[in-house]
Amino acid sequence: MTTQQLQDQIQAKKSFLCIGLDVDLNKIPEHLLQTEDPIFEFNKAIIDVTHDLCVSYKPNTAFYEAYGIKGWQSLEKTINYINEKYPEIFTIADAKRGDIGNTSSMYARAFFNDLDFDSVTVAPYMGKDSVEPFLAFEDKHTIMLALTSNEGAFDFQTQNVHGKELYKVVLETSKSWKNAHNLMYVVGATKAEYFTEIRKIVPDSFLLVPGVGAQGGSLAEVCKYGMSKNVGLLINSSRGIIYASNGTDFAEKAREEALKLQQEMEGILVSSFKFQV
Amino acid sequence: MTTQQLQDQIQAKKSFLCIGLDVDLNKIPEHLLQTEDPIFEFNKAIIDVTHDLCVSYKPNTAFYEAYGIKGWQSLEKTINYINEKYPEIFTIADAKRGDIGNTSSMYARAFFNDLDFDSVTVAPYMGKDSVEPFLAFEDKHTIMLALTSNEGAFDFQTQNVHGKELYKVVLETSKSWKNAHNLMYVVGATKAEYFTEIRKIVPDSFLLVPGVGAQGGSLAEVCKYGMSKNVGLLINSSRGIIYASNGTDFAEKAREEALKLQQEMEGILVSSFKFQV
Repeated sequence: MTTQQLQDQIQAKKSFLCIGLDVDLNKIPEHLLQTEDPIFEFNKAIIDVTHDLCVSYKPNTAFYEAYGIKGWQSLEKTINYINEKYPEIFTIADAKRGDIGNTSSMYARAFFNDLDFDSVTVAPYMGKDSVEPFLAFEDKHTIMLALTSNEGAFDFQTQNVHGKELYKVVLETSKSWKNAHNLMYVVGATKAEYFTEIRKIVPDSFLLVPGVGAQGGSLAEVCKYGMSKNVGLLINSSRGIIYASNGTDFAEKAREEALKLQQEMEGILVSSFKFQV
Repeated sequence: MTTQQLQDQIQAKKSFLCIGLDVDLNKIPEHLLQTEDPIFEFNKAIIDVTHDLCVSYKPNTAFYEAYGIKGWQSLEKTINYINEKYPEIFTIADAKRGDIGNTSSMYARAFFNDLDFDSVTVAPYMGKDSVEPFLAFEDKHTIMLALTSNEGAFDFQTQNVHGKELYKVVLETSKSWKNAHNLMYVVGATKAEYFTEIRKIVPDSFLLVPGVGAQGGSLAEVCKYGMSKNVGLLINSSRGIIYASNGTDFAEKAREEALKLQQEMEGILVSSFKFQV
């Protein structure tokens, strides 16, 4: 998917919501556990009731790997279902991979070719040659960790490197990498005040923003400081939507939560001078 | 597996060799491609002829994920085969994972419970709460990237943070984390001169050292600067051993290459005052 197609979808749906499909068998409705593939059944139900309210789904691979081969089957069925039924959706494999060049190429192949995700998240610690194999795929996107939403973000990411924080060095350095136009970045919503600085470095890049909702970030704050002239944000919510209820009404309640966020986003898009809806 | 058991194995085998099982279907002998599970058949043959020469096997998950569900089946069969037939072997899932706390817990569960690896490699960028869920497992080991063997290591890892390189900050900071005694570190062999400094920070920790062989690092140099009083090194070789031949003699040739490294290691252990063999 091209960036333009993602932007068109945002305009059409008046939403820049990404729904995180982090499915824990201990948290999903009990009646689904009787089905052959509870994780897929759960995802399918969530997707069917929310696809018009969001522009992206983001399964986190950890939640699938934890169930071994059965988990990978659920992941494969989920991505195939989205790609077949809702091809307009921007799909993110939240995998946070990164390794030496020939190994990163294998990961890129796993997520871009074998599973056919539109994008994958990667970690920056190993530098340029660990990320460029992902960037080599045209019309695929590589979403690199910059400033994450967890407490540990302050351990290294905000440490001062030659007068500026490490995450800024990461952002700046990555702009010189081959096919850097395929880069997006992860920036946590819990640190909204940082967006102003980040936008000075990457004014136009899409930012994937976790941390709204369960982790305490504010959508309005993020938009105020983080929006680009083309929106440039994908706001992720996982637990707040998919676990809104663990009864038989889970899908309905998930839609209600997704709708609240979509409506808030529509309001922001309409009131913003940056964007016509 | 406890650290003591790993040390005992090193003493018994006079080896601190780790063999990387990075299996690429384009590189293995053609006759194996006719079998039902070529990756597993290849691994099984390599393991059967080298298990007495090495103390550890390290499948890199990228090479399995690239083949989707079939790849995960090969990974599962490989780890099960090692655990059943050669339970003394220290197994490493080279996965370079790391995510927010509840997600890292799922990864830990995937590799420590579901697949029953003795250890997993992790990336440090997201800090303490992304690594501690792995450290919580007793008798399991978490091998964190410190200074990697690739070119990109110089992008961020060696950047100066408050007067010292980032990888040193990573090493120092991690020592204060809960269950830090379960930490080991990845340090690339291509930077042997760095080991002196690293041993000042983590004098006793095990270091997993990639980069000997294909990537150009010298075993003698690494041992000279990197050995602790209990050896404290796991030297990895992947391509140099497993792809020594791509004919029907691949296993035999792999053993020859592993034997060369084991003998060099035995020589170092015998000549070293640090260790009695």
